Amino acid sequence: MSTQQGMKPYVIGLDLGGTNSVFGIVDSRGEIKATTAIKTGGYDSAEDYVEACVNALQPIIEQVGGIETIKAMGIGAPNGNYYNGTIEFAPNLPWAHTCVVPLAKMFSDKLGVPVALTNDANAAAIGEMVYGVARGMKNFIVITLGTGVGSGIVVNGQLLYGSDGFAGELGHVIMRRENGRPCGCGRKGCLEAYCSATGVARTARELLATTDRPSLLRELNPEEITSLDVSIAAGKGDELANEIYEFTGKMLGEACADFAAFSSPEAFIFFGGMTKAGELIMKPIREAYDKQVLKIFKGKAQFLVSGLDGASAAVLGASAVGWEIQ
Amino acid sequence: MSTQQGMKPYVIGLDLGGTNSVFGIVDSRGEIKATTAIKTGGYDSAEDYVEACVNALQPIIEQVGGIETIKAMGIGAPNGNYYNGTIEFAPNLPWAHTCVVPLAKMFSDKLGVPVALTNDANAAAIGEMVYGVARGMKNFIVITLGTGVGSGIVVNGQLLYGSDGFAGELGHVIMRRENGRPCGCGRKGCLEAYCSATGVARTARELLATTDRPSLLRELNPEEITSLDVSIAAGKGDELANEIYEFTGKMLGEACADFAAFSSPEAFIFFGGMTKAGELIMKPIREAYDKQVLKIFKGKAQFLVSGLDGASAAVLGASAVGWEIQ
Repeated sequence: MSTQQGMKPYVIGLDLGGTNSVFGIVDSRGEIKATTAIKTGGYDSAEDYVEACVNALQPIIEQVGGIETIKAMGIGAPNGNYYNGTIEFAPNLPWAHTCVVPLAKMFSDKLGVPVALTNDANAAAIGEMVYGVARGMKNFIVITLGTGVGSGIVVNGQLLYGSDGFAGELGHVIMRRENGRPCGCGRKGCLEAYCSATGVARTARELLATTDRPSLLRELNPEEITSLDVSIAAGKGDELANEIYEFTGKMLGEACADFAAFSSPEAFIFFGGMTKAGELIMKPIREAYDKQVLKIFKGKAQFLVSGLDGASAAVLGASAVGWEIQ
Repeated sequence: MSTQQGMKPYVIGLDLGGTNSVFGIVDSRGEIKATTAIKTGGYDSAEDYVEACVNALQPIIEQVGGIETIKAMGIGAPNGNYYNGTIEFAPNLPWAHTCVVPLAKMFSDKLGVPVALTNDANAAAIGEMVYGVARGMKNFIVITLGTGVGSGIVVNGQLLYGSDGFAGELGHVIMRRENGRPCGCGRKGCLEAYCSATGVARTARELLATTDRPSLLRELNPEEITSLDVSIAAGKGDELANEIYEFTGKMLGEACADFAAFSSPEAFIFFGGMTKAGELIMKPIREAYDKQVLKIFKGKAQFLVSGLDGASAAVLGASAVGWEIQ
């Protein structure tokens, strides 16, 4: 029986986002064997949501050979707490924004397999360790650059959860103690307020408003500029857009220098839409890091872009949480 | 044989400082059974130093019943690398300032017991876990406030060494990115430049020079003011001296708020001479932390002063490294 269990070839991954819930059935090499999705909203209760999920899962579970082939399920979710298997007060989830939902247990009860849950950035870090560029690494930091800035920190081969399950909020270290930008967390000067996709767009608006320098970005309605617009303009050689990436990368590199003083990782791995800007963002990150980091750490850390396929990266990360269940 | 080994009741601790090398033979409760010391300097080579150490140790080893009663030896040393058991390019050690000394192996070869070595702040953290206020804790950060600011970070019950053995240099996170004070590390704005004993004395000199406010500290030669003088003046109700502690504590509290975003510890433990100032320093630390920390961490961490006896704290920390050898 235990041998058979050891041989179960698949895990289910659930990337639980504010809009969509995407499922994948994944093998140990990170190959997605079957996939499906439902809308995350539109349910009055967590029970209704879980039931809709299980209904959507049944056909793809059958497709890979039935529930007997499934070792476990992993969930990456906003405000996910690994220790308790709960989603706690997630502002973007109508059925979880005022309460603590024991989502791991609810899925486990319905499906009859072990279920683990963590936040999306931690899931990304586990994904890199299991299938991505961090295979074989024991100390690394994944930084997710999306609507916000998240992080998953691996130390001694283990995800750093801290005393309460919420460690690794590196988007909320303070980078500007004077005149810092307001952050969504209610404080000022956080890394996220500058280096998220939203932060990049804001940097663009600020530079356009406070200078009269020419830029392709002036053709757009300032309120509608996104980090993608900045990336496209920079790709066309727009100087102002390039400067925005240099500003953003410099701050990320300086932040990483502080993170090195904490856990001395062998790699920093960047994950999420903004990494599509490639060297536009990675080069200033590396340069600022090399300039700023403490001498004993110089030249030791690699700077990498996620090795998980963009479109399915979050599902892969979530599924990897399933493989990590002991 | 293995049972007998399991019962060996003592470890040797060596607190290897720039001036003195202090030894203690310690039982599992942290009681020091015998102690001795030699000068650290005055030796041409590491071999000579180790031989002098072993000669000094022989009588106290006999005193506790011979080498058969010794399970292991732990060393806390500047620039100590746990992974390699080496001291690397330690500027204050004449026999180690230009080279890598395999000190753990050298002691182990001479004494015939396992020897482990780490830096002094990490030794303090292990000491708190084994004998001090962190007993039973799995996630905490020790911050040493001395000539410099050091740190030992414990995560999942393990010291955080990182990829190279040098993790936990929290004295060198940047707290002032504009107009930062020069730090001994060659950079500017580090926590250590403000919150070490040296930093506190410098804050005093700056305040005395840039204001004409009255203070007991004006009776002293500015160049000779120490953090102890500031503490004494503050204890007498000197307003300026109190302000210096408030400034220092505020910065430490803000730094701890960033550290919480990293590893979400259950406690911050302060260690070293400056903690003698008691609430003068601890109160502003707690207040700044409560004001600055991310909402999800609010009210979760304790702020403690080291539970190791002041005079022998460093030796106890070093000895605890010996108990941790598997």
